[in-house]
Amino acid sequence: MKRHSSSGQLSRRSFLTTVGLVSATAAAGVTTACASGEAGTDGSADQQGADRPDPVVPFDGPHQAGIATPVQAHNTTVAFTLRDGVGPKEVRRLLNIWTSDARRMCSGEPVLADLEPELSSDPGRLTVTCGFGRGLFTAAGVADRAPRWLGPLPAFSTDRLDPRWGERDLVIQVCGDDRTTVSHALRILVRGGADYARPSWTQTGFLDVPVGPDGEPGTPRNLFGFKDGTVNPRTETDFDEQVWIDEAEASHPAHVGGTCMVIRRVAFDMPLWESADRTTREVSMGRTITEGAPLTGRAEFDEPDLAAIGDDGLPVIDAHAHIALAGVHDGDTRQRMLRRAYNYDLPVTAARADGLQDADLVALADTGLIFTCFQTDPRTSFIPVQRRLADGDRLNEWISHVGSAVFFIPPGTAEGEYWGEKLLG
Amino acid sequence: MKRHSSSGQLSRRSFLTTVGLVSATAAAGVTTACASGEAGTDGSADQQGADRPDPVVPFDGPHQAGIATPVQAHNTTVAFTLRDGVGPKEVRRLLNIWTSDARRMCSGEPVLADLEPELSSDPGRLTVTCGFGRGLFTAAGVADRAPRWLGPLPAFSTDRLDPRWGERDLVIQVCGDDRTTVSHALRILVRGGADYARPSWTQTGFLDVPVGPDGEPGTPRNLFGFKDGTVNPRTETDFDEQVWIDEAEASHPAHVGGTCMVIRRVAFDMPLWESADRTTREVSMGRTITEGAPLTGRAEFDEPDLAAIGDDGLPVIDAHAHIALAGVHDGDTRQRMLRRAYNYDLPVTAARADGLQDADLVALADTGLIFTCFQTDPRTSFIPVQRRLADGDRLNEWISHVGSAVFFIPPGTAEGEYWGEKLLG
Ligand code: HEM
Ligand code: HEM
Repeated sequence: MKRHSSSGQLSRRSFLTTVGLVSATAAAGVTTACASGEAGTDGSADQQGADRPDPVVPFDGPHQAGIATPVQAHNTTVAFTLRDGVGPKEVRRLLNIWTSDARRMCSGEPVLADLEPELSSDPGRLTVTCGFGRGLFTAAGVADRAPRWLGPLPAFSTDRLDPRWGERDLVIQVCGDDRTTVSHALRILVRGGADYARPSWTQTGFLDVPVGPDGEPGTPRNLFGFKDGTVNPRTETDFDEQVWIDEAEASHPAHVGGTCMVIRRVAFDMPLWESADRTTREVSMGRTITEGAPLTGRAEFDEPDLAAIGDDGLPVIDAHAHIALAGVHDGDTRQRMLRRAYNYDLPVTAARADGLQDADLVALADTGLIFTCFQTDPRTSFIPVQRRLADGDRLNEWISHVGSAVFFIPPGTAEGEYWGEKLLG
Repeated sequence: MKRHSSSGQLSRRSFLTTVGLVSATAAAGVTTACASGEAGTDGSADQQGADRPDPVVPFDGPHQAGIATPVQAHNTTVAFTLRDGVGPKEVRRLLNIWTSDARRMCSGEPVLADLEPELSSDPGRLTVTCGFGRGLFTAAGVADRAPRWLGPLPAFSTDRLDPRWGERDLVIQVCGDDRTTVSHALRILVRGGADYARPSWTQTGFLDVPVGPDGEPGTPRNLFGFKDGTVNPRTETDFDEQVWIDEAEASHPAHVGGTCMVIRRVAFDMPLWESADRTTREVSMGRTITEGAPLTGRAEFDEPDLAAIGDDGLPVIDAHAHIALAGVHDGDTRQRMLRRAYNYDLPVTAARADGLQDADLVALADTGLIFTCFQTDPRTSFIPVQRRLADGDRLNEWISHVGSAVFFIPPGTAEGEYWGEKLLG
């Protein structure tokens, strides 16, 4: 079984090293420039230690940042609705403003109208990723250039979707290691775009990325306690195959280098989960909690063996375990995707106001996963996988999909270019 | 002016160094023990780098942790209401469960019933601080032992209080550098106490603590962009004077070593703030944004000179600036307190459900400060200071106090003791 060409610990390492190097090199100039500017005068990095990763993730490039970027500690994703009367000219103006503000903030330079440059002088691996809904293409006067797959997903049997978390005209995903910087960047963008678009929903999540004894980032855990993100593209080849749209997949040349973002909000029933013992949990996932190893292996990156039969004559990994159904075990590698999920855990009052939960104990658990994934085409990846999960995943006992939206993420920018410029231009 | 005996950079440093040393020494044994246990097998620390501070803050001691502890990145504070029928026996049982669970989690040991020990194996400077409202004393059958000051504060002229964030029977403040660990610890406590108390409100905040070139933590910024926490007790003497209740202040011997927590929820009007220029902001605060220096000085820890007159014949620090009114400039040093405030920034949907805000642009700003302070007696510190602020603070243009609660924080515990044991026993 050689399904995941690069799932071994070794290739994982070399991937991370490569990404680190590229980022450090590309950013070196910028950081130096910034440290000598006024905004850099308090010379401060975050709590995260003097040796934390390079604070600048390069903004321009063939692909937008915030996708292949190793996960940051915080993610706030905001969907926007275009205001009435916004047409082709205004859409381009909006994207122009947003791209140049985002480019500056991600480089640690204050934007023109920024009255709090101190809040972004150390970007803390800030990335801003922009996506388009179908409404954006229509308003821009290029409805025919939207990818065919752009729009609501088909219904799945277990959906409990609330339109509050649904499709919108535009999305901005802001990620970074400093929560204050993320909040600030978002305010700047919301204000900068206020004449054209209004925020319609916001999803805020976090991850605590562990660092191994060798200083390398490990796989963070979700609020069910499992390592989440083990099986994911790592190498450039993986990304080219699973994530970035190529010429053959593109219905318009300016889609190339872009990707499809699916964002599902998945609520956890914590009290019910907490009543399940560890064996039930591990059987449902098909992996161990402590190591994150498949039940047929010992280490996190061991290949699961779905054919293995235990002493009791039953499969070691249950056929309805999450990884048995989510994994691509029938050889259709087009089903693979990049998962970049964040935990959410909202204050009790939010949950109450939602009317979602009323039992006393549940009140503290407006908890779950902001399941964001990136792929070349949802029709060959997210949809078939989620159909299998909806119909059979043991995890369904404890989770409900409450939100769903799909966006086209245009390719990365050249210096001075705005998001989607080639597509809309 | 020698008001703040230790506000110089030097004494600040030596204080932090001392705290670090104590914590490292006390914790060394625990950490080692834990690393060899099963829960430690993924050997991981947080993203925050191999050299981040010791992950264990000692739990037992003369004072509860989470007060003099240098601020962590995350704070979730939950207020509880006792269930009907909970009497003296049940209160003691609850405090017993909570104290022993908190003690274990803060040391990196899983609690007995923990099915996700992986979520707390690296405590990431987790602290759990417990406070009592008047209702707790009554239920425990010792109403006469409550501090006289315990209960709602007098009304202030600018209050816009919502009882949703008001007085309750009990409070738990959970702080730590790992958000997942904080969430997990809280779930454990809520579940562990579920038969006796139900969570009634939750306030979740964050801080990004900068690290200077020398690796020392600096002052974090609030979402108005100002350094917040400059003038605060630093030395043991400061804490003894301003924070810890001593024999003379105690109305019961078992109050000694405890303190008073006031928690005010302060909402920021971000759009209005953003329309104010930098000069207006700095004049309103009395400090510069970049350095956090008083307008009469150059560096953050310079002493403000309220008597200084500028070239224009006006005071350099306006009489209605926040620090002019909040500071203790009339020599009544009993007014000093420890401020340990956290930023909050909630998703738009929460704000909407609250019905607090309706303008499009404002929707993204359910933003403000969870202003938590600790002092020996609110009648001599918080109340006179907040009265001056309510009546004259220039900041009032952009802030509203929407929540208020007061708790008695019992002193720290000896090994095996539960919170408040001497007081209730
Ligand atoms: C709340 C819901 C979910 C939870 C808690 C969850 C958690 C996990 C965990 C812990 C793993 C194993 C470790 C790893 O490879 O990251 C995993 C694997 C995976 N999950 Fe999920 N997941 C959820 C929803 C989804 C959804 C909605 C999809 C896509 C439709 C999905 C697709 C996958 C895939 C493709 C894998 C890798 C399977 C493999 O090849 O071994 N998951 N998930
Ligand atoms: C949203 C509201 C507030 C904001 C944004 C705010 C912010 C600040 C800032 C930036 C400083 C200067 C730096 C420092 O010493 O930390 C400060 C100082 C201070 N604040 Fe506030 N504060 C707020 C509310 C309050 C409240 C409610 C109180 C107490 C009633 C308070 C008491 C103080 C004190 C005692 C100082 C030190 C003054 C001095 O001695 O120089 N603040 N505050």
